[in-house]
Amino acid sequence: MQLTRRDFSRLGALGIAAHLAPSLHAQANQKKIGYAVIGLGRIAGHFMPGTRSTTNSQITALVSGHRDKAERIAAEYNVPTGSIYNYENFDEIAHNPSVDAVYVALPNSMHAEYTIRAAKAGKHVLCEKPMATSVADCEKMIAACKAANVKLMIAYRCHYEPTNLRAIQLIRDGALGQVQTIQSAFGFNISPGEWRLSKKLAGGGPLYDVGIYSLNACRYLTGEEPDHISAYASVIDHDGRFNEVEENVSWTMHFPSGILTSCSTTYGANMDGYFRVYGSKGWLQVDKAFVYEGLHLSAEYSGKKLDEANPARDPSQFQAEAEHFSRCIQNGLEPQSPGEEGLRDMRYITEIYRSAGISS
Amino acid sequence: MQLTRRDFSRLGALGIAAHLAPSLHAQANQKKIGYAVIGLGRIAGHFMPGTRSTTNSQITALVSGHRDKAERIAAEYNVPTGSIYNYENFDEIAHNPSVDAVYVALPNSMHAEYTIRAAKAGKHVLCEKPMATSVADCEKMIAACKAANVKLMIAYRCHYEPTNLRAIQLIRDGALGQVQTIQSAFGFNISPGEWRLSKKLAGGGPLYDVGIYSLNACRYLTGEEPDHISAYASVIDHDGRFNEVEENVSWTMHFPSGILTSCSTTYGANMDGYFRVYGSKGWLQVDKAFVYEGLHLSAEYSGKKLDEANPARDPSQFQAEAEHFSRCIQNGLEPQSPGEEGLRDMRYITEIYRSAGISS
Repeated sequence: MQLTRRDFSRLGALGIAAHLAPSLHAQANQKKIGYAVIGLGRIAGHFMPGTRSTTNSQITALVSGHRDKAERIAAEYNVPTGSIYNYENFDEIAHNPSVDAVYVALPNSMHAEYTIRAAKAGKHVLCEKPMATSVADCEKMIAACKAANVKLMIAYRCHYEPTNLRAIQLIRDGALGQVQTIQSAFGFNISPGEWRLSKKLAGGGPLYDVGIYSLNACRYLTGEEPDHISAYASVIDHDGRFNEVEENVSWTMHFPSGILTSCSTTYGANMDGYFRVYGSKGWLQVDKAFVYEGLHLSAEYSGKKLDEANPARDPSQFQAEAEHFSRCIQNGLEPQSPGEEGLRDMRYITEIYRSAGISS
Repeated sequence: MQLTRRDFSRLGALGIAAHLAPSLHAQANQKKIGYAVIGLGRIAGHFMPGTRSTTNSQITALVSGHRDKAERIAAEYNVPTGSIYNYENFDEIAHNPSVDAVYVALPNSMHAEYTIRAAKAGKHVLCEKPMATSVADCEKMIAACKAANVKLMIAYRCHYEPTNLRAIQLIRDGALGQVQTIQSAFGFNISPGEWRLSKKLAGGGPLYDVGIYSLNACRYLTGEEPDHISAYASVIDHDGRFNEVEENVSWTMHFPSGILTSCSTTYGANMDGYFRVYGSKGWLQVDKAFVYEGLHLSAEYSGKKLDEANPARDPSQFQAEAEHFSRCIQNGLEPQSPGEEGLRDMRYITEIYRSAGISS
């Protein structure tokens, strides 16, 4: 993917255009960044095809507990069988020069361990969200990457997704006037038996998994950090799914400017994911804001009406995300969503649980 | 308006079908209920045409500080000039046999005084929302109407509005399965100089005026009373409008079943008013849920898709409201939205302000 002038102006809204500028010229002449994918589950199945559409990223190693599955995927991505690792021999990856970076796509509670082991092996780390399951783990991950002088990026897809960037740009350009309030929700009706229902593996319930999108959106849409948070959590369906984690969380955030945001997440109902932003001059809404395709922006402000369906399809968001991190590695730049960004959300998640009376 | 079988079944969802049953047969033979309208502002301008479409209600007196305006409207509604009152001689209405009830359409802080004076004059009272500006006033109003043996109804339009009733019915029928979470918002960008910006007249900001619709909706949609409430309020625009009342309020409510609801209201942005309900089997949304026309219900559940625009136009909601109260008077029944309903919201409003750190 070449960055168009329009993309570039959109990214400017996030304050990262300057970071990307050198790469516009440099990327064609550089060696592709090689990724080891750790964990071959659902999300990895989106990321790997995404790298194929990039000019600067490729899959060069796999880490899995299932050798046969790994071999099947290795064949698909031309990964030599010598570059398939399991969780025991993972650290040998240090000696594999085809691997520049790892993509951590494991259950939440394993993010910290594999980020730190990868850093110690001298590899850059692209880690899925949520970054970890405790503030302390996030801090250790940042410290480990700093000590090893490798880059750490948290895979906040929406920071690299055109419809979300378009919404941010409209707000920063003042189209909506003074933003007053934002509402956002994201959730799904979870099936029994998912690892997401294990507190040990997931850290918590839907807030960690999908609510984090609404939380993060309120921050990138306002461009501010919340200074007050209050929350409630509940379990309604006593059907065995929610013995360890909550079913519902709703929380309100107050931002320093006075903007108020309301968010909800659930494992008990399908909520497509949306945000609505209301300002003094108009409103803006993105439906399916956090999913892989079908994002839809509508807005009305100052007599204008927008109705923009995003034609991009999965895996475009993963492509943009990989492309960005590889470019940061190639050009020695800081990612738009570094470890510190994941740490911030982890602090707010902790505060939400504290307010809702859930011990973490 | 004749109640159709369908309306009747809808009202059943609110548990009031039994109340209305006798009136289906009785209404044709009875004298119309005569209303004195107190306060000839915007909302009265919706209510009065509404009564014209009823079979059982008519305007028989007017109460206003502006004699010329009152005379103009009196001519329009065939009200004799002898039935025009001002705020000084209002109590003489006791001797006017053409007046069965009053419709209190004054600024919020005057609701209590005129409800109590009307009750003492032996008239039934239909009082606009919010019922009053304090819990104590609400209690006095209820006591006064009880002592005078007159009926008291709070003008919660949406309790008598077909699209809202349809949403309630779908939920009660289990179409959405177990409801988990509700989001609702309503607000507008207020002009300077409105009486709504005076704390003395309005009692508070947008929560009293429009936020109350979202608050009330969460209660009629769930059929439960919230047991925990937390809230934030803010003023962003220091442009002279918000010296006395808040600009924004967002609040979260926890209900005994575990349902969580998130609501926002503002005087700083136009928010058309909506609610979204998410359940284990699907979702339901009403756009323009609280305005006079253009209400739109959409839903998806168990493979079904609903997309229902309400063809009813203003003043139909006011018609239904007047028709209901007149029927209650004619048949000695308790209104669907009695004083106790207004008192409940007043208690929650007080709790929201307390949580948001606003002294009432």
